[in-house]
Amino acid sequence: MNYQELLQLDQQDPLHKLREAFVLPDDTIYLDGNSLGPMPKVCAERAQEVLHQQWSQDLIKSWNTHQWIELPSKVGSKIAALIGAAPEQVMCCDSTSINLFKVLSSALLLQPKRRIVLSLNGNFPTDLYMVQGLSSLIGEDRCEMQLVEEAELEQALTDQIAVLLLSHVDFRSGKLLDMARMTKLAQQQGILVIWDLAHSAGALPVALDDCQVDFAVGCGYKYLNGGPGAPAFLYVAKRHLSKVSQPLSGWMGHKAPFAFTIQYEKPAGIEHFLTGTPPVISMSVLDAALDVFANVNMQTVRAKSLALANTFHQLLTSHAELHELTLLTPLTEAERGSQLAYRHPQAYALCQALIKRGVIADFRAPDILRLGFTPLYLRYIDMWIAVEILSDVVKTAEYLKAEYAVKQKVT
Amino acid sequence: MNYQELLQLDQQDPLHKLREAFVLPDDTIYLDGNSLGPMPKVCAERAQEVLHQQWSQDLIKSWNTHQWIELPSKVGSKIAALIGAAPEQVMCCDSTSINLFKVLSSALLLQPKRRIVLSLNGNFPTDLYMVQGLSSLIGEDRCEMQLVEEAELEQALTDQIAVLLLSHVDFRSGKLLDMARMTKLAQQQGILVIWDLAHSAGALPVALDDCQVDFAVGCGYKYLNGGPGAPAFLYVAKRHLSKVSQPLSGWMGHKAPFAFTIQYEKPAGIEHFLTGTPPVISMSVLDAALDVFANVNMQTVRAKSLALANTFHQLLTSHAELHELTLLTPLTEAERGSQLAYRHPQAYALCQALIKRGVIADFRAPDILRLGFTPLYLRYIDMWIAVEILSDVVKTAEYLKAEYAVKQKVT
Repeated sequence: MNYQELLQLDQQDPLHKLREAFVLPDDTIYLDGNSLGPMPKVCAERAQEVLHQQWSQDLIKSWNTHQWIELPSKVGSKIAALIGAAPEQVMCCDSTSINLFKVLSSALLLQPKRRIVLSLNGNFPTDLYMVQGLSSLIGEDRCEMQLVEEAELEQALTDQIAVLLLSHVDFRSGKLLDMARMTKLAQQQGILVIWDLAHSAGALPVALDDCQVDFAVGCGYKYLNGGPGAPAFLYVAKRHLSKVSQPLSGWMGHKAPFAFTIQYEKPAGIEHFLTGTPPVISMSVLDAALDVFANVNMQTVRAKSLALANTFHQLLTSHAELHELTLLTPLTEAERGSQLAYRHPQAYALCQALIKRGVIADFRAPDILRLGFTPLYLRYIDMWIAVEILSDVVKTAEYLKAEYAVKQKVT
Repeated sequence: MNYQELLQLDQQDPLHKLREAFVLPDDTIYLDGNSLGPMPKVCAERAQEVLHQQWSQDLIKSWNTHQWIELPSKVGSKIAALIGAAPEQVMCCDSTSINLFKVLSSALLLQPKRRIVLSLNGNFPTDLYMVQGLSSLIGEDRCEMQLVEEAELEQALTDQIAVLLLSHVDFRSGKLLDMARMTKLAQQQGILVIWDLAHSAGALPVALDDCQVDFAVGCGYKYLNGGPGAPAFLYVAKRHLSKVSQPLSGWMGHKAPFAFTIQYEKPAGIEHFLTGTPPVISMSVLDAALDVFANVNMQTVRAKSLALANTFHQLLTSHAELHELTLLTPLTEAERGSQLAYRHPQAYALCQALIKRGVIADFRAPDILRLGFTPLYLRYIDMWIAVEILSDVVKTAEYLKAEYAVKQKVT
């Protein structure tokens, strides 16, 4: 594949025009949308409106007149459409960690005779930390974490397990798990399943209802492009809503928040999963960002995501000097998400040298260079340019400069 | 007091110029800063900077280059200065409700032989709901809520009580509790004390360290003017930091978040109380808002707050037609916060009619008209205008119009 052929692919790309919906810095190829999505232009307009009209002019009245009070469910509905959930099962609120605590507590209450929460060693750490936190609070006799390697996962699904907690896409390797199959296998053993969609919502088609998933959580600032630290979301299957309860029962999750009764009263629906007052500015920006997906078909996104990653990998393997980069992500399309992860003995320095040259990737300890392929704004020619720069950085040994060796606090 | 005298008070007011730091709508007297503070001008500038430079241009690098990672502690330090806390005991994070869950869990872990959480019937409901949520999760044998009337409070402080949970200022009546005295009385019985500062932080001098308070939580969007649903804060006394642990142990509260270890490891300091990724846009706006307090003496704020409320009440009582408004707030200065609450049989309609005329107050069920006096931007002449309008609304029976009788969802 040469530059001309890739330019042609861009011209034929049905998503090509969507790039214009984003603000992207000049001379930058942004392969880190899996960590923080770039800013859709509508977000700046919305922030302007929230600050200069809603907050500063309409003040407290905006809870009604600008429907601030409806934001968590409004944003939740938009996210629901992207993750295969019929309405009224998704709420936008809090952080992924907090939301995991809510759904995990709920799931365990539905499993009074079981206590083990099964997950993978490689799961995103905050998910594991939240299990540990709940366990420390309610005791190992009610919540005990068990971690296995992925190869051991299926045989670990027994009737001793209360909850299976999995990330749809592994944050390090980019490996995609089979949601339908794993959910079914678990449920056959009476296990409830929680999926963390941080690296799949907005990146590929997700079918929570079709897979009969019990609970899910996910992140607003990666593929949903909701801005740094954007509020997260949670999903509770309709069939569980009347039976579950969650312990972070704040006033926004009360049946009648403004009745100010002394006793908490559980509402019938997903509103029960709200806690405190939502961060309206951040949530409004996420709300606007989701409009970029309004007419986007997630199958089209998925096809382009795979094609971009395939292009990148083919170009990379065609460069002999890049042979030290070994692919960690499965090449089988059904087994990967929207990123590629390469191991390299000096992955950190390589990543820093790339960033200096305008190719934004990220590093995950100890030796992983992680590249996200986000079809709403990346072009095929970006793959070509990125690999050319990577090749140059390696050929010239530029990444071996001392300045790239020192690790920063956050990468 | 006539208009001329009040105009003179404004001219002599050391805080008078601060009004210019805020955007305030025309023809509006905003007596609801106790519910949602108005926008400081610096907030719009900061939002602009966060969106157009930090997010859209510097993208993921901003975690380092713009110190997003430091925001919770940076904002925490600014708040610490307003609530009498030496540094490194305050973090900005999550919502007040979530933060209460964290400090309450911590407090109960420090009290293994006690289980009762004592509070007042009139405490802000979300605080009570969070106690109920924790109780439902860990059982009444470890967390049982006991509510009393304020008159019964002191005699209820026995060695059976684990935690005393109080709001510094009552959200309905505006009554201020004596923090030093109540904390001391409770601690004499071995009780740990949590104060909710939602209606006092930024409104009056708070002296957490001097009062030897154990824990506190509070809100960013009322007197701190941090924007709708701005992130909240929590305080943990230095002496407890090494001994406590809290169950919402997410990755941002890990000793080394980016080491991605499997086991949660508790950091030595207040960082332990962080959970997930913070909403950077909302938190940056709060950070900017706090700069308005940079050279403000809280004693000066308190003196003006009392003077404004005194002025309002004197003017109101001088109008015979307003005799149906009966003051619920104690008139004794040491016993009230920065608001006045009046009962009126048709408080809801009255509030709506006032809002229509540009005097923004709020209503609390069943019959309370609540008015906040926020010295950073309110003038003495505003008191005069507000009472004149209130008088006119009552004299002309304008509030009896049908349009003011129907309750909206949020007030």
